[in-house]
Amino acid sequence: MTGIRERSYQWRDPLASASVAPTVDGLSYMQAMMRGELPHPPILDTLDFELESVDVGSAVFRLRPAEFHYNPIGSVHGGVYATLLDSAAGCAVQTTLPAGAWYTSMGLNAKFLRRITVDTGEVRCEGRIVHRGGRTALARAELTDGAGKLLAEATSSCLIMRAAEER
Amino acid sequence: MTGIRERSYQWRDPLASASVAPTVDGLSYMQAMMRGELPHPPILDTLDFELESVDVGSAVFRLRPAEFHYNPIGSVHGGVYATLLDSAAGCAVQTTLPAGAWYTSMGLNAKFLRRITVDTGEVRCEGRIVHRGGRTALARAELTDGAGKLLAEATSSCLIMRAAEER
Amino acid sequence: MTGIRERSYQWRDPLASASVAPTVDGLSYMQAMMRGELPHPPILDTLDFELESVDVGSAVFRLRPAEFHYNPIGSVHGGVYATLLDSAAGCAVQTTLPAGAWYTSMGLNAKFLRRITVDTGEVRCEGRIVHRGGRTALARAELTDGAGKLLAEATSSCLIMRAAEER
Amino acid sequence: MTGIRERSYQWRDPLASASVAPTVDGLSYMQAMMRGELPHPPILDTLDFELESVDVGSAVFRLRPAEFHYNPIGSVHGGVYATLLDSAAGCAVQTTLPAGAWYTSMGLNAKFLRRITVDTGEVRCEGRIVHRGGRTALARAELTDGAGKLLAEATSSCLIMRAAEER
Repeated sequence: MTGIRERSYQWRDPLASASVAPTVDGLSYMQAMMRGELPHPPILDTLDFELESVDVGSAVFRLRPAEFHYNPIGSVHGGVYATLLDSAAGCAVQTTLPAGAWYTSMGLNAKFLRRITVDTGEVRCEGRIVHRGGRTALARAELTDGAGKLLAEATSSCLIMRAAEER
Repeated sequence: MTGIRERSYQWRDPLASASVAPTVDGLSYMQAMMRGELPHPPILDTLDFELESVDVGSAVFRLRPAEFHYNPIGSVHGGVYATLLDSAAGCAVQTTLPAGAWYTSMGLNAKFLRRITVDTGEVRCEGRIVHRGGRTALARAELTDGAGKLLAEATSSCLIMRAAEER
Repeated sequence: MTGIRERSYQWRDPLASASVAPTVDGLSYMQAMMRGELPHPPILDTLDFELESVDVGSAVFRLRPAEFHYNPIGSVHGGVYATLLDSAAGCAVQTTLPAGAWYTSMGLNAKFLRRITVDTGEVRCEGRIVHRGGRTALARAELTDGAGKLLAEATSSCLIMRAAEER
Repeated sequence: MTGIRERSYQWRDPLASASVAPTVDGLSYMQAMMRGELPHPPILDTLDFELESVDVGSAVFRLRPAEFHYNPIGSVHGGVYATLLDSAAGCAVQTTLPAGAWYTSMGLNAKFLRRITVDTGEVRCEGRIVHRGGRTALARAELTDGAGKLLAEATSSCLIMRAAEER
């Protein structure tokens, strides 16, 4: 039968990273992941995207569109856009957290503006903090192509939790 | 080095399905895909989820959570939720389209309500049409666990296009 | 000069209601407001809508569209839709709160499906709880005309707070 | 009975503006409204806010918070935020339209970040185009206080229509 493709990939046990998370602040944690000292999350391997940079209040990921990201109509599925946007927005929030705090995403509001195909070439997704309160944070992410053209954007509302609240 | 995992999977050339799409109505197209007469989109293989059923105005997908869906904190990444929600909502819209019409998702507004792990077991995502106008459609999708507990939900706004408009 | 219209309306000091709120549970508070024992909020008078019913997890408002609700293109402004949707969703959350707890709306995601004019006649907006967690709640509201046709819908994410957390 | 307040206000027949709309481009129309040559929409009078400036791809409104904007808990109702955000985003889209084209808002995704009271003083809401396609447009609006602090923000998805399509 024609037209069959195959892909193999590897990832690492994500619990190694999860166990470190509570002991360091969010920026240090993300930096350790970027340097490869902590395994990155399996979803990055599954969808083949990577963390390009992190700073206080921002995080950037990049992805090279491939056929295995495709929906039925020959372009990248909206869920792949959403995964990048959610990752960039969430990590932007994480870089603002002290040790002992963590966040959970309450939702993602994504707008899909332009079609992405393998011909689009590498795309870049940058997340930035818009508002950082004590209990909640709002971040925005923008997905752009190599020429800086906006392909999609999203806002993400996160809930911030602290160890003390759990007692 | 410990903790390395590997996965291999296959998918089929998505253009075979894409070329059939304009010639049949949306429901027939989705039904042919469900019966395996048309290849399903690669993203289903990449994230390992499947189409369970389609009907006029609705579509249901299911997924068994696995470690390769994980974010850094040991649970399924929000992007996987979004992929299921976007697929279910979009396909619900597609089942209402006549031959020669197609849709594009303008955005997804997803709310993440509960954590999903491998212990959650198989999850089910059902999309339903809320409003079907001439130029736009609104669909809602709900992601539930085996006990029917709501894990996430979303609305998706779609733009409907017709071949005649392209001339 | 022709075409000038004028309207006068009254409202009551909202602080009377605000001071009662912490001492009773949310449902009792809403019921007292519906019976007229507590002044309803000024925005109801300004936009001339009213509370029709409340129950555990739901609240219904109604409004008769008028020219003073209009945008520049001769129909009801989206902000009026949003006010009804936000009120119904928020009050649905409030009916689930014990005494000493309160909520704040983090956001509203509204979809406008059909135009409303004075010819539409009275519209009805029903809010319902979708998910009620310890720290957050999600509610949905639907705006319908007299024939039950869906005019707009929204989801609202709320943060729940308790007196103890403020100490 | 104590604590009763009253307000009277005027507005002008909105159909005068609506009839002019199709004959001029969106920017000229908004500018004529700002100069008072065309009546502004009644909702501006009802909620007492005004247009401060317009330019290609942007529009700014301002409002002085008052008790008649209040919800039951002694602050400005989310619907008032939404009205400002929807107006600013929608008008930003309108300024990009040629004569004979118009838009309709498909939805508003608003995030409420900070409480507004009469003590907040005048607030400012600026809308800007994010993406302008042939059939759709995406705009963002930000609501800020006098010190530039972000109080709320929103994105609005609009559908663009042209006279030719109606034939």
